[in-house]
Amino acid sequence: MGANDNFASMSAAALRGEVEDLFARYDNLLNKGEYEKWLEMFAQDTLYRIVPRENFEMGLPLATWHCESKAMIEDRIVAIRKTLMYAPRYVRRFGSGIVVEGWQDGLLKVESSYLATETLLDQVTKVFNVGHRYDQLINENGILKFKSRVCVYDTILIPNSLVFPL
Amino acid sequence: MGANDNFASMSAAALRGEVEDLFARYDNLLNKGEYEKWLEMFAQDTLYRIVPRENFEMGLPLATWHCESKAMIEDRIVAIRKTLMYAPRYVRRFGSGIVVEGWQDGLLKVESSYLATETLLDQVTKVFNVGHRYDQLINENGILKFKSRVCVYDTILIPNSLVFPL
Amino acid sequence: MGANDNFASMSAAALRGEVEDLFARYDNLLNKGEYEKWLEMFAQDTLYRIVPRENFEMGLPLATWHCESKAMIEDRIVAIRKTLMYAPRYVRRFGSGIVVEGWQDGLLKVESSYLATETLLDQVTKVFNVGHRYDQLINENGILKFKSRVCVYDTILIPNSLVFPL
Repeated sequence: MGANDNFASMSAAALRGEVEDLFARYDNLLNKGEYEKWLEMFAQDTLYRIVPRENFEMGLPLATWHCESKAMIEDRIVAIRKTLMYAPRYVRRFGSGIVVEGWQDGLLKVESSYLATETLLDQVTKVFNVGHRYDQLINENGILKFKSRVCVYDTILIPNSLVFPL
Repeated sequence: MGANDNFASMSAAALRGEVEDLFARYDNLLNKGEYEKWLEMFAQDTLYRIVPRENFEMGLPLATWHCESKAMIEDRIVAIRKTLMYAPRYVRRFGSGIVVEGWQDGLLKVESSYLATETLLDQVTKVFNVGHRYDQLINENGILKFKSRVCVYDTILIPNSLVFPL
Repeated sequence: MGANDNFASMSAAALRGEVEDLFARYDNLLNKGEYEKWLEMFAQDTLYRIVPRENFEMGLPLATWHCESKAMIEDRIVAIRKTLMYAPRYVRRFGSGIVVEGWQDGLLKVESSYLATETLLDQVTKVFNVGHRYDQLINENGILKFKSRVCVYDTILIPNSLVFPL
């Protein structure tokens, strides 16, 4: 919530509550398609990646999303807004198992799992992507922001819906 | 928990914890089929709806569930208890991404996502419904209760299992 | 976390935070295949079971996993590490709806739901098992550990992947 911006001196319990809240707001914005507000949750200098687990574990560079700056994420948002080549669908993200590892060199390391469903208009809802989120948060002007978010998904199949962020 | 019933003066963090606990108990009661206890989580004067997203966003009135009072919810519980026309199945609800927006005019606005699975006796478990919960909570005699819960689901297909509440 | 090991005198809110953290770390270790660290979350004298709901509700003894001690869990870990008869797959666990019931006779009762996905290497991710977790936690040398965890799953089909723990 940001009433207390001194995240480094918070108790582990209080900090965990802040991160839970942050992640819930993140998913909520994406689930409602509010991409421009979502963009503001990233730090000025940021890294945002979505990569298959096999490549991640082997250190290979292939990524479905690879944005090294806020501007690159913004470009992708514009592409989503303008493109008409995808069938209309809803993507919904579910976060779970948030583990706050603690501050190191001004960065707060967090790990969690996510599950994303996709629903095409006249079809049943399907699980289309699950994986691990490796995050680094930073205190930017009293607000926790994503210095990096790396979503590592379990399948090696690249789903169409990964045009939408996780 | 209700040891502290002064929800309006709680810190954002403490209030978030109360809401997390409330939502977990709600899902837990439904998952165990304890519908009569679940009913008690609603305010005397309440609204409970389950609606497809398309209709919700266009403001259309179609709803799979539409209960304008506790008595109407109770009628549906009786129907579930008495009806034998559905194959036996288990429905399980998973809440995620709880965002507490804060108090306004005596009501606490909360948004979250839910995923529901259904398991027919001799079949594998399937995701059958996911969506967004728009809630308004009220302090009724020192206990947080649902003044309204609107579950907006992503698909337009109406699943059989929506005879069971979410 | 364990900075405060006096769990019995904690507020309900603080205790709930500790349990949330514990469960997140549990799922996280399993999701990363760190079974040896996961084993350390169980009490010296422990019970770990995975059982189908129908059998659980009828009090029948059939169980997919039935470990009455840490040593028995360890045996299963060794079996997982050594066996090559299963196709490579990722299993991911999602906890939800954690309800902390409170201390009784030195044990903390907790209930929650879980959903597990499985991903075979060249296939899409599937929900393969969902159910209810009935847990009893104990304070062992200032750390909350599992005195018993019973995972009761909704389907009666026994999935291959239950060679992996939940």
